[in-house]
Amino acid sequence: MTSSGVYSNTMAKKNHDSRAIALHKRFKGKLATTSLTRIRTKDDLSAAYTPGVAAVSRAIAKDKKLARVLTMNGRMIAVVSDGSAVLGLGNIGPEAALPVMEGKSALFKEFSGLDSFPIVLNTQDTDEIIAVVKAIAPGFAGINLEDIAAPRCFEVEEKLIESLNIPVMHDDQHGTAIVVLAALINAMQAVKKDLNGSRVVVSGVGAAGVATMRLIKLYAPQVRIFAVDSIGVIWKGRKDLSPVKKKLIGDDVIFAEEDGELAKALIGADVFIGVSKGGALKSHMVGKMADRPVLFPVANPDPEISYEDAKKTKAAIIGTGRSDYPNQINNVLAFPGVFRGALDAGARKITNDMKIAAARAIAGLVSRSEIKRGVVVPDALDRRVAKTVARAVRKAI
Amino acid sequence: MTSSGVYSNTMAKKNHDSRAIALHKRFKGKLATTSLTRIRTKDDLSAAYTPGVAAVSRAIAKDKKLARVLTMNGRMIAVVSDGSAVLGLGNIGPEAALPVMEGKSALFKEFSGLDSFPIVLNTQDTDEIIAVVKAIAPGFAGINLEDIAAPRCFEVEEKLIESLNIPVMHDDQHGTAIVVLAALINAMQAVKKDLNGSRVVVSGVGAAGVATMRLIKLYAPQVRIFAVDSIGVIWKGRKDLSPVKKKLIGDDVIFAEEDGELAKALIGADVFIGVSKGGALKSHMVGKMADRPVLFPVANPDPEISYEDAKKTKAAIIGTGRSDYPNQINNVLAFPGVFRGALDAGARKITNDMKIAAARAIAGLVSRSEIKRGVVVPDALDRRVAKTVARAVRKAI
Repeated sequence: MTSSGVYSNTMAKKNHDSRAIALHKRFKGKLATTSLTRIRTKDDLSAAYTPGVAAVSRAIAKDKKLARVLTMNGRMIAVVSDGSAVLGLGNIGPEAALPVMEGKSALFKEFSGLDSFPIVLNTQDTDEIIAVVKAIAPGFAGINLEDIAAPRCFEVEEKLIESLNIPVMHDDQHGTAIVVLAALINAMQAVKKDLNGSRVVVSGVGAAGVATMRLIKLYAPQVRIFAVDSIGVIWKGRKDLSPVKKKLIGDDVIFAEEDGELAKALIGADVFIGVSKGGALKSHMVGKMADRPVLFPVANPDPEISYEDAKKTKAAIIGTGRSDYPNQINNVLAFPGVFRGALDAGARKITNDMKIAAARAIAGLVSRSEIKRGVVVPDALDRRVAKTVARAVRKAI
Repeated sequence: MTSSGVYSNTMAKKNHDSRAIALHKRFKGKLATTSLTRIRTKDDLSAAYTPGVAAVSRAIAKDKKLARVLTMNGRMIAVVSDGSAVLGLGNIGPEAALPVMEGKSALFKEFSGLDSFPIVLNTQDTDEIIAVVKAIAPGFAGINLEDIAAPRCFEVEEKLIESLNIPVMHDDQHGTAIVVLAALINAMQAVKKDLNGSRVVVSGVGAAGVATMRLIKLYAPQVRIFAVDSIGVIWKGRKDLSPVKKKLIGDDVIFAEEDGELAKALIGADVFIGVSKGGALKSHMVGKMADRPVLFPVANPDPEISYEDAKKTKAAIIGTGRSDYPNQINNVLAFPGVFRGALDAGARKITNDMKIAAARAIAGLVSRSEIKRGVVVPDALDRRVAKTVARAVRKAI
């Protein structure tokens, strides 16, 4: 990158930042609550509040299921975070996480019409998070967990899915997994390779990495996945593995016979997926990959390899997490439609079939001619996506 | 009441009920969330969400206080209930409580423009309620506790006020107390008596009763209050008193030298305040009260004495909790303005001074000529009230 390139990028970032700050100052954040009914007359007051509302409460007290059709509990999503793994910023706490969660709610509304509300938690204790979400659940139709650090996020999600009767999804895991799989489906078509049999290297074994590997393996059981964390390739010889990483081996999700570093794992690899940290992937490593390699360095805001540097390698397809480059791998392609579809279907869980259906639906919105030109995901702002995903998820129930 | 009167009341109730049910079915409840910003372009997406939102999160991570101006945490009220004492319906649980809480949020919006969100809890354990509210507090500017049964409500409110840095108010206690005091101020003017020195009998020593007695005593220290629960008058000779009731004696809030029943306490009394159960007050008891007695049977929907029966007694002023009779003692006169004023002032607590200022402000909106005609509170739908209360509360800080 030339120095003028650095300069203009810095300027663009400053503009982004000041626009964002100004927007948030203007309204004190982004999310408002509104009443769906006017209260101007005594009759209005009685229908919305006392005494008429007592009839509604009485009906629900008799048959709890009626809450689905008579209250917001049939349509309201909680966006829950403990602020422990926010964007690329790390453990910045609940208050600092709130702008992101309000943004999430804004996206739910904008893309799927769903009502949602941010709940940021003043605790990072696994059991407390679970207890709090269980306690507030009666007001909600679904729980979107967000920006909760690994490995806590796995246990929180698992226990909540077990104990609640409404869809629960940690978006950092499954939203990312769905969109990466969608991009991968099209990328493999673009480079004319079969995902089954391909060598896929995933850098980063946190929330996103684990879910992405599991979903890819479900979709293409003969794929050979190599997982790389900050120590190196995860293989059976390592003594330092966490239960989650051991389970990736035990469940046969990853290939765990070879040790080594990222550079070694990438020799002959067809696909690189980065859900780790900026700068992890070097150009010389891409040079050793198989022909026409696919690169998805999705760490945000700093990808594992910059788009400019990736373009100079032999990479055939490049997708990042950023909106200022082609093929943005953005969760917004998945979560609004996934929850919309699950709620419309009255689903109590978000299943793997639903996730794969969502990935296929996203992939299917890219035309053959676009794929030929290296486009593998729809635009993040494409209005068709959430509807199409919702329909696919509804059918996959 | 004639049988045709019973018939037409039943019909009116049926109409209310079916209107309320229809309203709630139409939209699935009453509360929606909306995004304050459009997301149509990449710049929009960046300002509201990634990557721009990271600048907002970073700013708050550095200085937590900025959350007040950059997120909804500076303006969002949580309406929290465990569903244990909902309207007159009792312990009907969180789902059945939700229509009431959504109604509360609708009223907050309608009368004070405040954003608020219902949180209904799947627990009725005091410590758990406190823990959950503390955990979700970082997203909120204030906590409106609602329909939590006594005595649990006292401890929950006290501990949350102690541990949170934002206004916390149990509306069943203080909202009722403020509006009853407002009505009482004007009623004493109407009957040309001084509250100091008057004999006031309060039937019902739950959430509303305790707070109402305490606020009246603060306002008029020479008032003589007699508290009556389901056993009889609360006095120092009773062995069955709960800590809360003992404290009313210990704090010198009530006159506790005489025992007896409600009927006895009312002999020579100037004021009856009912926050207990329908039917507790009989016409013959009113006959034994002092001249020009004031009756506030506010149990809802069935008052301690029906408006029709009360009209046939020597009562000079009558106020009920119902919207279909004059002088509706309705919390909606208090809570929207109280929270609006507290938030506008940046108050961390809702003090007794603020509550008394709110009561005076509500009372002050009734003109002298109205008071002469027996009107002692503004109409529940009077748009001036919340603004006037907010201003008074802001000044009382």
